[in-house]
Amino acid sequence: MTTLDLHPDRLFPVDPGLRALARSLYATVATLPIVSPHGHTDPQWYADDTPFPNASALFITPDHYVFRMLYSQGVPLEALGIPRRSDAGAAGGGAIETDARKIWRTFAAHWPLFRGTPTRVWLDHAFHENFGIRERLEPANADAIFDRINAALATPAFRPRALFDRFGIEVIATTESPLDPLAHHAKIRASGWGGRVVTAYRPDPVADPEFEGFRANVERFGALAGENASTWSGYLASHRNRRAFFASMGATSTDHGHPTAQTADLTPAECQRLLDRALAGTISPAEAELFRGQVLTEMAKMSLDDGLVMQIHPGSFRNHNGAVFRDFGRDKGADIPTRTDYVRALKPLLDRVGTERGLSIVLFTLDESTYARELAPLAGHYPVLKLGPPWWFHDSFEGMLRFFSMAIETAGFANTVGFNDDTRAFLSIPARHDVWRRVACRFLSTLVGEHRLEEDEAFALAPDLAYGLAKRAYKL
Amino acid sequence: MTTLDLHPDRLFPVDPGLRALARSLYATVATLPIVSPHGHTDPQWYADDTPFPNASALFITPDHYVFRMLYSQGVPLEALGIPRRSDAGAAGGGAIETDARKIWRTFAAHWPLFRGTPTRVWLDHAFHENFGIRERLEPANADAIFDRINAALATPAFRPRALFDRFGIEVIATTESPLDPLAHHAKIRASGWGGRVVTAYRPDPVADPEFEGFRANVERFGALAGENASTWSGYLASHRNRRAFFASMGATSTDHGHPTAQTADLTPAECQRLLDRALAGTISPAEAELFRGQVLTEMAKMSLDDGLVMQIHPGSFRNHNGAVFRDFGRDKGADIPTRTDYVRALKPLLDRVGTERGLSIVLFTLDESTYARELAPLAGHYPVLKLGPPWWFHDSFEGMLRFFSMAIETAGFANTVGFNDDTRAFLSIPARHDVWRRVACRFLSTLVGEHRLEEDEAFALAPDLAYGLAKRAYKL
Amino acid sequence: MTTLDLHPDRLFPVDPGLRALARSLYATVATLPIVSPHGHTDPQWYADDTPFPNASALFITPDHYVFRMLYSQGVPLEALGIPRRSDAGAAGGGAIETDARKIWRTFAAHWPLFRGTPTRVWLDHAFHENFGIRERLEPANADAIFDRINAALATPAFRPRALFDRFGIEVIATTESPLDPLAHHAKIRASGWGGRVVTAYRPDPVADPEFEGFRANVERFGALAGENASTWSGYLASHRNRRAFFASMGATSTDHGHPTAQTADLTPAECQRLLDRALAGTISPAEAELFRGQVLTEMAKMSLDDGLVMQIHPGSFRNHNGAVFRDFGRDKGADIPTRTDYVRALKPLLDRVGTERGLSIVLFTLDESTYARELAPLAGHYPVLKLGPPWWFHDSFEGMLRFFSMAIETAGFANTVGFNDDTRAFLSIPARHDVWRRVACRFLSTLVGEHRLEEDEAFALAPDLAYGLAKRAYKL
Repeated sequence: MTTLDLHPDRLFPVDPGLRALARSLYATVATLPIVSPHGHTDPQWYADDTPFPNASALFITPDHYVFRMLYSQGVPLEALGIPRRSDAGAAGGGAIETDARKIWRTFAAHWPLFRGTPTRVWLDHAFHENFGIRERLEPANADAIFDRINAALATPAFRPRALFDRFGIEVIATTESPLDPLAHHAKIRASGWGGRVVTAYRPDPVADPEFEGFRANVERFGALAGENASTWSGYLASHRNRRAFFASMGATSTDHGHPTAQTADLTPAECQRLLDRALAGTISPAEAELFRGQVLTEMAKMSLDDGLVMQIHPGSFRNHNGAVFRDFGRDKGADIPTRTDYVRALKPLLDRVGTERGLSIVLFTLDESTYARELAPLAGHYPVLKLGPPWWFHDSFEGMLRFFSMAIETAGFANTVGFNDDTRAFLSIPARHDVWRRVACRFLSTLVGEHRLEEDEAFALAPDLAYGLAKRAYKL
Repeated sequence: MTTLDLHPDRLFPVDPGLRALARSLYATVATLPIVSPHGHTDPQWYADDTPFPNASALFITPDHYVFRMLYSQGVPLEALGIPRRSDAGAAGGGAIETDARKIWRTFAAHWPLFRGTPTRVWLDHAFHENFGIRERLEPANADAIFDRINAALATPAFRPRALFDRFGIEVIATTESPLDPLAHHAKIRASGWGGRVVTAYRPDPVADPEFEGFRANVERFGALAGENASTWSGYLASHRNRRAFFASMGATSTDHGHPTAQTADLTPAECQRLLDRALAGTISPAEAELFRGQVLTEMAKMSLDDGLVMQIHPGSFRNHNGAVFRDFGRDKGADIPTRTDYVRALKPLLDRVGTERGLSIVLFTLDESTYARELAPLAGHYPVLKLGPPWWFHDSFEGMLRFFSMAIETAGFANTVGFNDDTRAFLSIPARHDVWRRVACRFLSTLVGEHRLEEDEAFALAPDLAYGLAKRAYKL
Repeated sequence: MTTLDLHPDRLFPVDPGLRALARSLYATVATLPIVSPHGHTDPQWYADDTPFPNASALFITPDHYVFRMLYSQGVPLEALGIPRRSDAGAAGGGAIETDARKIWRTFAAHWPLFRGTPTRVWLDHAFHENFGIRERLEPANADAIFDRINAALATPAFRPRALFDRFGIEVIATTESPLDPLAHHAKIRASGWGGRVVTAYRPDPVADPEFEGFRANVERFGALAGENASTWSGYLASHRNRRAFFASMGATSTDHGHPTAQTADLTPAECQRLLDRALAGTISPAEAELFRGQVLTEMAKMSLDDGLVMQIHPGSFRNHNGAVFRDFGRDKGADIPTRTDYVRALKPLLDRVGTERGLSIVLFTLDESTYARELAPLAGHYPVLKLGPPWWFHDSFEGMLRFFSMAIETAGFANTVGFNDDTRAFLSIPARHDVWRRVACRFLSTLVGEHRLEEDEAFALAPDLAYGLAKRAYKL
């Protein structure tokens, strides 16, 4: 048995002077409320407040960071209880493991795989802080830890709403499709519970002609909005309608997860033509790209009116593993970042709305080479642009250090938006915010130690990075 | 009021041993003369030696680093006194602020935006070293600091030539178009003043078919040279003629700011055809690219004869913000770096002149991903190639550290050219060279501390990085 | 004279605590045997065991890292004794220097060029550890050092096999073409010598339609295999045949050095058509790319059967300097890395074999921007993929630090394969492994110091990084 002991100085600089300053800065932000302006937790958790079933269902099955690592080392997804797609054929593949304890044992046996990864940092934090675990997970204690977590989950203190409070969440945004009736959000609001859970408008299913079921999606979209969404004007009116509904359910933002950052500024006739082809299923890949790009520009224009903050998350090649997509579906750890251009891609949108002062567009990237080359120079010039924090694979200690060192000199702190956890792993939320706060304080302490910033300025910036920037940028 | 206090150890490592060594190295180079082989200061300053009018005209209006940051946070360019283009229509937009004090107050109110940026480092240096300012700029002291700077500027000690001497400038290069009669340079030379100001040959207005007024530019170009520049041979002869004139005015270099690093090696007939189309305004974007690329190869060939060092500054998407370009023109903080290829782009030129020993081509980049991947391997092989220092957005503490850590292992120090300030902000020149010298000494101290270099070698390299490499590479 | 003194703490962190831990970690791995699973040493050395002729032939003429640096600073390749291509015309160029002492003096005179480069680290190590040299090379001691090295080389202790033993090499792989009869390997095996030297299957001459002599190569390939390699099925059968022969001579891997990472999955009819055009010399560049990509997929499929580990080394623009290639041929320091895509390029192959559990594909890159963006996400998902160590220009102190900081968080340690020296410079092998071991221990010590890893885990990982991962990944 080895001790699991969260060191109070973890992620801080090693130099004693810097460490002391990082510690002082961190002390001022460690317990600030969590503003989580973008993420993928399930609103049903907060609506129904039913207990999480067990440790495996909490930590393994929903967390693609976890199961992709085991899969990469030869563990079948079936053995981790990942559910097969409902429409998957009998394409072979073993039986899906349903014994949560067995899944947990497989996980424990592969624990050393996570050495040096952010997943390890988040899980250590979750185990230690929530469940009082003081031993490193290993086969010998796997059962005991599994039982301990399960016992806790069965108590009221571990229901979703109680955890929400325990985590100090001031507000959290989920992400829904325009086709979502937002029933869970309605239930939350009707419940009288004080937790603030807002939605965000993510129109990919009706904005991406290559999305599964696009034609049916658009039909339903129009029906929900009481519009004929097969005409371009009706399609736009449907967006306006659903955005207004989302805003009424607390949304302050939209979100757009496109393969690239391409935008467009076409004539209505061209738009109608693309929409026709998209609905007919005859649209080419290049045209689909153009259609998505046009939707981005339309979303920006609507944001000028309704004030929703726009988020662009480009550059992921989704469902790269054909076999995994066929058998298990989306979001199974097989999305791979690609090289992404912003300079040419965003120009049509920026030519249209780039100099507005009432609009806010938050740019994310999976291509770190764009931080210093494209994103910081763009955000350091255009009034509408701001930089999102390190995202996904880069939401990590090293990723955050690279972000700070590559983006701040040109963008400044004020053109950034603090932190997003962007997660569907509920227990990782406090851990992720804690990592961000620690690394931000580390960065500030280094600036001070190298006399690039004065100490009082670091103390002014720390709470902004931890809390204020996110709250203001997302109007929360 | 907060103290503005330049720390003597700023930008040095935090480790006491490294810091002590960095300090010792820096002591040997801190007061070396400044060799500024490439930049954009206005030769009229040195020619006329009239006082700078006021603090805003000195620090804000001409410095795109400064006003782009304020603009990104919603401050209109008009409020900063940025002059509208003479040919701008009455396209709306507010009145241009003409009260320098009001501009300064706006600047002071936004001072915190510069935290963590190189601009802050340069301005702190300029305020402290030149004007004896010992308080951090803020709204409460904005007027007092404005008055203090203005009072100094009205004294003889703050005239351009006096500042030139005070800064310890041994030689500075400006950058002019072939269409420039170099009257200011002639006046400087005729004045008997001892300051060495040389020009550099930057033919973009006659080398880029997409430059505003290209056809008229080429016509005037031929007229100045006494050649028919509408024929390819006359066009080349015009370059030769103007290069010779520039060399007679002290130029030791040419400079080329192209969208990409593309070069070409076409037949004279192809060149004539491209020139015809360029002059007729019927050239396509791809052909314009080819034309610019051919000019680079021609410039390299001419350098073989006249010995001018060639600089290539590729990869900036100029005037990205259409509205700002339309209303305010070029160089207004809206140039954005793009991904840049060197390996395929430079091959035509290198196949032609790459193995020559009498030619020197200095490569710059705005795409840091090319340092280790393309530029250092190219410069570490081809006799004609050398690496310019971190440029523009990368002329910063972090940018320099990345340059050193990514370029030196493969290129070696000898294939680099020391520092360029490349600025139009006169007061930033000593600050920029000081940052370079500090970071170079920091890098060397780290190499020694990690036993990758011996101490005597670091002491040999420091003055080379601060002074010798630039002087030799640019033949100054 | 200046002392050459290898510092025992070289490349370790400067912080005393980290340094102490790095030292402790390194102590556990410093003398582990060398597993060299991929490289380019000459098997004839081990077969014939004749002495190396002199210091220049050992350190300069075969080492493109060395002569490219001198060439970049104006030293002609002729002056370094680089042999001209046998088929080079009388294309001018000076006489090839044949006096090894003169070559050595030229080298010594340019020694300062290597400051801050990995070559310097390797050479210092080789001089100090093998030849007892305690002075820094310079013109004044060049002759004495030359004589000292030569005297040592003439002794039995410096024969290739003795050095192999002295270096603690447990196993080394060379790299041969399918056309190679592996006579040296046969001689080694027949000799009774205990050193383990294995081959690796590198089919570029018969897999790349743009390789010199492709048609004749394929003809000979079929002849060696007893197949008609001009039919697609015979071509594949020839590969199977030669792979089996290579495996019988110890090969556990194949290696593929393509311009890009492009793969393909074509029908046999398409493959036959491409092969026909390749043999006829009418294949287009795009088709040649497709052909190479198809070969990669075929190699992967064959690996499923014969178990050879597949290595992909893409992204080098070979023979960039046309004049050097024409006069001196391949591998003359003129190969330049290019931007490389893996995500789209590998998809055809991965769709075919990506989820297999019996296959191992090791990916290398010369484009460090792909570590965090593409390679770590791919290797952290696909069961067949693993990440090779920093390669070529990135096989350096800084390159290794970047690799660790950019790849490990997403890939984990388990999806990496330890170290490859990948060299043809025999004396650099222990130096290169030593650098890797030192930097790995440095990285681990930093993780522990920042409380991202526990100390016992660092001690478990250090020998894996130094030895175990390579041995297991390459089945050695």
